[in-house]
Amino acid sequence: MNDITPATRRAFLKALTAASGLISLREASAQSDAEKAHARAMELLKPGSEKIAILIYPSFTALDAIGPQHMLAGMTGASVKFIAATAEPVKTDSGYFITPQLTFDQCPEQLDLLLIPGGTTGTIQAMEDNKVLDFVTLAASRSKRIGSVCTGSLILGAAGLLKGKRATSHWQTLDLLKIAGATPVAQRIVRDQNVITGAGVTAGIDLALDLVREYRGDFYAQGVQLLAEYDPQPHFAKSGNAATAPKEVVDLLNHMHAGFMAKWGEKLQNVIHRR
Amino acid sequence: MNDITPATRRAFLKALTAASGLISLREASAQSDAEKAHARAMELLKPGSEKIAILIYPSFTALDAIGPQHMLAGMTGASVKFIAATAEPVKTDSGYFITPQLTFDQCPEQLDLLLIPGGTTGTIQAMEDNKVLDFVTLAASRSKRIGSVCTGSLILGAAGLLKGKRATSHWQTLDLLKIAGATPVAQRIVRDQNVITGAGVTAGIDLALDLVREYRGDFYAQGVQLLAEYDPQPHFAKSGNAATAPKEVVDLLNHMHAGFMAKWGEKLQNVIHRR
Repeated sequence: MNDITPATRRAFLKALTAASGLISLREASAQSDAEKAHARAMELLKPGSEKIAILIYPSFTALDAIGPQHMLAGMTGASVKFIAATAEPVKTDSGYFITPQLTFDQCPEQLDLLLIPGGTTGTIQAMEDNKVLDFVTLAASRSKRIGSVCTGSLILGAAGLLKGKRATSHWQTLDLLKIAGATPVAQRIVRDQNVITGAGVTAGIDLALDLVREYRGDFYAQGVQLLAEYDPQPHFAKSGNAATAPKEVVDLLNHMHAGFMAKWGEKLQNVIHRR
Repeated sequence: MNDITPATRRAFLKALTAASGLISLREASAQSDAEKAHARAMELLKPGSEKIAILIYPSFTALDAIGPQHMLAGMTGASVKFIAATAEPVKTDSGYFITPQLTFDQCPEQLDLLLIPGGTTGTIQAMEDNKVLDFVTLAASRSKRIGSVCTGSLILGAAGLLKGKRATSHWQTLDLLKIAGATPVAQRIVRDQNVITGAGVTAGIDLALDLVREYRGDFYAQGVQLLAEYDPQPHFAKSGNAATAPKEVVDLLNHMHAGFMAKWGEKLQNVIHRR
């Protein structure tokens, strides 16, 4: 459920109107409580106007994008849109398609946030695609903040936007950030001036909730969190972090992706050198 | 990154072949380690053949579906597809579209799992849609297991599939399960025979990882978890659960949705009575 939306707000106001009839029958103290709750609710539901675009490109990882999209879209009045080179549906790395809501040409003049999800082969291609890099560079120059989830950091890096910045990425690609002139930081969320980066895939949820907290305050962010029932309970508490997961799981994944990481580094080097 | 896929497997085998050249230069003990790692990797990457369909319908909540989709699709060889009434792109509750990969008519004869995401108004509509309920009933009769995330439970309930079962749902809709003849259980994941239900939105990720663990074992599940860097770190550790979140946040959300829950209950009652 993702329902702090204009429709919900209307429903809520309707419910409040209905409730006010009941409230008048109760004692004054209860009424005062209800009034306080009402005032609080009005404060909470006050629409904002954040403009957020989430880049999507062929073979991006959908969860990198939709985790944060869900949380950010919980901000009443915010515009949270998927943006792509063209209006055509974009294939995810699982083979299904998501339709962008904006094309590069339709990007708002100034964004509060441009967020870039990651992927694998698709992200390498996006990293080498001048149309993508030109858009990211231009939009970033007009955005209050830029951000990434997972290997989306490498697109930011390819566009030269991580130079001199502290940043994070999917744990297997952290070291590659150095090629882009960044200082890798093995944290779930890293902020440095106008740049916010998240670790692998699911870190996008934590990153987005942290932004909701910043944009709308603690109370609002907790409302969004509770609506999404974000009370994570992974069966293996330590296996989602390379620093605490069983060594043989870490080793295997590193072994699996060694060739891939080498290719990624080489490509990133080429792009950085060229631009 | 969601890359335990056939392509990754090929890349992995290629990397292994390349690595074997290096290994031959090292001492025997290292070679033996590499061989063990190889054997382990082959065991890990052995493709399975689980057939999983995730129902999508107008105004479903994308994260309910894509959280589990991502984790389940980490199982090499598994077929994890979005299924809808027609092949048309399906609008999510955030206004963008996701294209289904199967139509009801194309549903595999026997599924390992039929999973149903939730939503708000869209879920009420799906719950009253005979085409959806007929499909769910038929597919469930042929599926080894049925499941839901968030309010998707109410579609299972409307189809009569939760009768006599222990089940969970989005915390605000838990009590509604009684209308469907179920015993509500306030847990993140609830299993009862062939039924697995998850709590609100993000619980789908935990649910799916638990299924990966069951289908492929602990080691594999930890690999999928680590690839998704699922090491959740919500800023507010207690605010994602109604039992531990600040009371005023819980109260406000309950106040906001009181009318909605009443409507939902009434509609569910009608459907159950009719079928």
